[in-house]
Amino acid sequence: MTEFEHQIRVGWGDCDPARIVYTGRVPAFALESIEAWWEHHTGGGWFHMELDRNIGTPFVSIAMTMRSPITPRHRLICRVWPTKLGETSIGFHVEGFQNGVLCFEGDFVCVFVAVDQFKKTRPPEEIRTLVLSKIRPAR
Amino acid sequence: MTEFEHQIRVGWGDCDPARIVYTGRVPAFALESIEAWWEHHTGGGWFHMELDRNIGTPFVSIAMTMRSPITPRHRLICRVWPTKLGETSIGFHVEGFQNGVLCFEGDFVCVFVAVDQFKKTRPPEEIRTLVLSKIRPAR
Amino acid sequence: MTEFEHQIRVGWGDCDPARIVYTGRVPAFALESIEAWWEHHTGGGWFHMELDRNIGTPFVSIAMTMRSPITPRHRLICRVWPTKLGETSIGFHVEGFQNGVLCFEGDFVCVFVAVDQFKKTRPPEEIRTLVLSKIRPAR
Amino acid sequence: MTEFEHQIRVGWGDCDPARIVYTGRVPAFALESIEAWWEHHTGGGWFHMELDRNIGTPFVSIAMTMRSPITPRHRLICRVWPTKLGETSIGFHVEGFQNGVLCFEGDFVCVFVAVDQFKKTRPPEEIRTLVLSKIRPAR
Repeated sequence: MTEFEHQIRVGWGDCDPARIVYTGRVPAFALESIEAWWEHHTGGGWFHMELDRNIGTPFVSIAMTMRSPITPRHRLICRVWPTKLGETSIGFHVEGFQNGVLCFEGDFVCVFVAVDQFKKTRPPEEIRTLVLSKIRPAR
Repeated sequence: MTEFEHQIRVGWGDCDPARIVYTGRVPAFALESIEAWWEHHTGGGWFHMELDRNIGTPFVSIAMTMRSPITPRHRLICRVWPTKLGETSIGFHVEGFQNGVLCFEGDFVCVFVAVDQFKKTRPPEEIRTLVLSKIRPAR
Repeated sequence: MTEFEHQIRVGWGDCDPARIVYTGRVPAFALESIEAWWEHHTGGGWFHMELDRNIGTPFVSIAMTMRSPITPRHRLICRVWPTKLGETSIGFHVEGFQNGVLCFEGDFVCVFVAVDQFKKTRPPEEIRTLVLSKIRPAR
Repeated sequence: MTEFEHQIRVGWGDCDPARIVYTGRVPAFALESIEAWWEHHTGGGWFHMELDRNIGTPFVSIAMTMRSPITPRHRLICRVWPTKLGETSIGFHVEGFQNGVLCFEGDFVCVFVAVDQFKKTRPPEEIRTLVLSKIRPAR
C-alpha cells in the first residue's frame, strides 16, 4: 500500500537568509499536506468540510523533527497518512522529502468538531471508514 | 498635524536569501498598518469591524513603489493616512521608514461593504467624520 | 500565442474570516507566478538565478486591481507574461483566474541587478532574447 | 524571577474562516518570540547573530500543544525561557497567553552552528553564561 503524496513548490519567498526554508514555514507545509489529504480523499479541503459539511478538525498538537534543510532546488514531496482514530480525534503522520532525502517528519493530532457548536463530536461513519482503511503506524 | 504611525518588528523569517525582506511580505506590512490605523481610531481592527459592526472594507486596488530594502536592523515605522473618501470608498496612503529612510510607499483603495449582504454601502456617519478629519493628500 | 500559466492550490490557511483569500496573500501569489515564469523558461527560479547565475530581479513597483474574491473552491490559474524590457528593467503582467473568472490583475516592474555588487545591470543576451520573444501588451 | 515576554499584535490576516488564528501561523508566533528573546538578551535577533556573529541556531524539533483559540481580540503575550543547555544545543519553552488564558505552549530544541561551516559548534562563553542564568524547567 502506498500512502498519499502532496507536492509543494518551494520558492524564494519561503527561504530565509541562511538560504534554506525558514523553520516557521515548515509546519504550514505539513498542515497544507494534511489538508490536501482530506481534499484528495473526500472531495474537498477544510473549507469544504467546514462550510459545506459542518465538520471542523482543529489541531491540538504538533510534534516535528527537522532532519535536513529544505531548499527551492527540488519539489517537496509530503507523504501523509492517518496513524490513529479515536472517538473524536485523529492522528496524522507527515514526512517531507526532497530528492529522496527526508527533510522533516511530524505527528499531528486533531479533534473533530461540529462547527456550528464548536464542540467535539464523532465524525460521520463514512469518514471513520475512510480513515480506518488508510491507517497505519507512523513508522 | 502628525499622522498615525504603526511600528513593525522585522524578523529573520521576513527576509529572503538576498538578506532583505521578501517583496511578497511588503504589501502585507502595509495592510497591517492600515488595519492598525482603524484599530487606533475606532477601537478595533478589521475583526471587530466585520464581526461586531457589520462593516467590511475589502481592497480594490494596491499600488506600491519600493524605495529601499527593508532589513531586521531597524523597526519599520509605517505612516498611514486617508487620502480620499467617496460615497462608498476610501483611499489610504502608507509610507514605510527604517532609520529615517523611506523604504516603500503605496496607495490603497477599499470599498465599504455591509458584511451580511456583501454589498457596497455608505459607511456610518461617525466613520465619515473621523476619516474627513484625518484626510490629506498623499504628498 | 498562449501565455504561461501557473496553478496555485488555494487553501484554508490563505483565507480570512470573510471566507475569501486575505488580500495580503494576493501579491505573494502574483510574485510566485512570476517566479514560476522564470523557472519554466530558464530552468530555475529566483534561488537559481541569484545563487548560480548572479542575477537578481528585485521589484520596484507593484500595481494590482482586485476583481473578484478568491476562495479554495477552485485552483487559481495565474497567467504571466512580460510586457516590456528596458536596458536594466522588465515589466510583467499577471492575471489570476478561478473557474474562468478574473480575480485579480497586476503590473510589476523589476530591475536586473548583479547580485555580487547589488547594482543595476543589463541582463545576459539569452535572457533579452527570451523576454523579447514573449513580450506583448498587458491587454 | 520573571521570564521574558514578547507581545504580538494578532490581525485579521492571521485568522482563518473559523475566525481564529490559523494553526499554521502559531509555530511562527512561537519562533518570533524566541527570536525576540535573543534580541532582548544579546542586542540582536537571528539576522544579527548569523551575519555579524557567525552564530546560527537552526531548529531540530518543535512540540506544541494548542490549549485555546487565538483571536485578534487581545494581544498575544508570549513568555519564553531556556529550559536546557547542552554542549551544542539549547531548549526553549514558550507559552502564549491572551487575556490571561493559556492559548498554546511548546518546547523547541535548536543547535548552535558556525554559520560559515554549517557545522555544530559550542556557543561563545558569554552566551552559555547568559543562558545558564535564565534556565529553568518548562513547568
